Amino acid sequence: MLKTRLTERLGLSHPIISAPMAFAAGGRLAAAVSAAGGLGLIGGGYGDADWLEGEFRAAGSQPVGCGFITWSLRKQPALLDLALSKHPKAILLSFDDPAPLAERVRQRGVTLMCQVQTRRDAERAIQCGADVIVAQGGEAGGHGEKRATMTLVPEVADLIAKTSPETLLCAAGGIGDGRGIAAALMLGADGVMIGSRLWASHEANVSEGMHQAALKASGDDTIRSQVMDLARKLPWRTRYSARVLKNQFIERWHGHEAELMTVADEEAAKYRKAWADGDPEKSNTFVGEVVGLIRKIEPTGEIIQRMVQEASLLLQSSSKYVVSKP
Amino acid sequence: MLKTRLTERLGLSHPIISAPMAFAAGGRLAAAVSAAGGLGLIGGGYGDADWLEGEFRAAGSQPVGCGFITWSLRKQPALLDLALSKHPKAILLSFDDPAPLAERVRQRGVTLMCQVQTRRDAERAIQCGADVIVAQGGEAGGHGEKRATMTLVPEVADLIAKTSPETLLCAAGGIGDGRGIAAALMLGADGVMIGSRLWASHEANVSEGMHQAALKASGDDTIRSQVMDLARKLPWRTRYSARVLKNQFIERWHGHEAELMTVADEEAAKYRKAWADGDPEKSNTFVGEVVGLIRKIEPTGEIIQRMVQEASLLLQSSSKYVVSKP
Repeated sequence: MLKTRLTERLGLSHPIISAPMAFAAGGRLAAAVSAAGGLGLIGGGYGDADWLEGEFRAAGSQPVGCGFITWSLRKQPALLDLALSKHPKAILLSFDDPAPLAERVRQRGVTLMCQVQTRRDAERAIQCGADVIVAQGGEAGGHGEKRATMTLVPEVADLIAKTSPETLLCAAGGIGDGRGIAAALMLGADGVMIGSRLWASHEANVSEGMHQAALKASGDDTIRSQVMDLARKLPWRTRYSARVLKNQFIERWHGHEAELMTVADEEAAKYRKAWADGDPEKSNTFVGEVVGLIRKIEPTGEIIQRMVQEASLLLQSSSKYVVSKP
Repeated sequence: MLKTRLTERLGLSHPIISAPMAFAAGGRLAAAVSAAGGLGLIGGGYGDADWLEGEFRAAGSQPVGCGFITWSLRKQPALLDLALSKHPKAILLSFDDPAPLAERVRQRGVTLMCQVQTRRDAERAIQCGADVIVAQGGEAGGHGEKRATMTLVPEVADLIAKTSPETLLCAAGGIGDGRGIAAALMLGADGVMIGSRLWASHEANVSEGMHQAALKASGDDTIRSQVMDLARKLPWRTRYSARVLKNQFIERWHGHEAELMTVADEEAAKYRKAWADGDPEKSNTFVGEVVGLIRKIEPTGEIIQRMVQEASLLLQSSSKYVVSKP
């Protein structure tokens, strides 16, 4: 077990929260993370009430939370009411201003998590009364921005210490094993949010082809791009991009965004079909740089257990580096 | 004192190496870092024999090393002979293939450090016989690439463990205080390379205006760009960009590279004058995202002492996170 302010406040065995990855993070993954002592979050994605209802059902009796894409949720706030009706352990809002949705979460007494990508976002999250700030570095898979976990976490930790010391902080982006957890705690985080490493689990909703593509990749083989959002006609603001594996689709369209938009209808249909087929070349495999540390698709419980063991060993033996002056 | 494989191999008190920042890292800074128990590196920059001679002289009797921009050094390899004649403690090569210069360093029995920005670069550095690999994340100030320290370090650590376990590893990029040092050790590094935090010291060759601009900035206020190299007519390969503070110059030219090239002669003259004047708006302040953690320009010795103290405290107390199962 790893004890931090986060585990104490949320009643967890380990300070590990799973990222609410759109499509990949359903009720099965969230429940497995919670069963392993962390907190699992269902990925609310772009919003589908029936899907969300089904995923909460799939989580069964495990306490789980739910994460939303803020700008998308704002268009269909009824989904938030649906999630709140399931007595979630937490609601996470990410991408765009959390107000006014944040207030509805707080009014219900549910733990409010705000994922941020910049220091400026963190200031806003504190204003909105976030209980937990998740500082996400650009090495993360899927949507995000450019700042790195290594600097964003201590900078937000300093901001929290100065302006809102009761707010908790999780590090997200680039954490794929116990080394990453131990490093995040050293940087000042109270816990971590894990995406890609849990994406590479038996319980994630990911195609076999994409899993296999990820196992072959190094972190060098990922890229931040916006072409998948153009192809899907998703109105993401330009400050956000998504990290994916480089592949045929990226090779064809990255850097050719204007051309892509001239054939958007045709490409959108092709992309959606390839995505439904789980095609790792004609759609996209959403993983972070940490993919270079992943060698096997495994059960979630085993992944979390090993991460905690690795981190515990590192944290227990780190005093070996310190030598008193003679 | 902090003990690692790096301190033992190089005979240091702390596993801290200063980045050989072009222009900013002269003999005075390098000597101050070595005097404080780390290893200082003079920044060989774009190559000027008289300057380099003078900076080695300025380092006095302190053992220091020297770092070069590989592609630039290849055009004037006599500078490497000059540096080697000063009995440097180490030579660092960064940016582009280290061969064949690496071989000349090894033949002289001098410690060879290769800074890398990708896993692929790290494989090449091992082939070239590097004694120390410096894995530099894109959060770093100045030139670099996009991969993040948080994932590059453990991925290179795994590569080293598998293929060349005697090779040492330093983390660079995003390390500005003891938290960063402790995190780097958790990630699998044997030490750290510090740039921006030592740039913000009394001993660095930096204008007052740039120092003041940095003190006001958050990590959000930095950006990777190539316009300063276009303006200086420096033939950097497009894979590399430099992280600097956003300012008037960036606002004017970033994203307008083609236009900049049409007025290159005029702009180059303006840039060089502004740089000589230390102007933080019309030239560039080269710092990393870690600038958001820097609040004061201080003596190098004090900076290093505090970083080591902070790291020691964190490393000594980190077992508090680990709880045995009941």
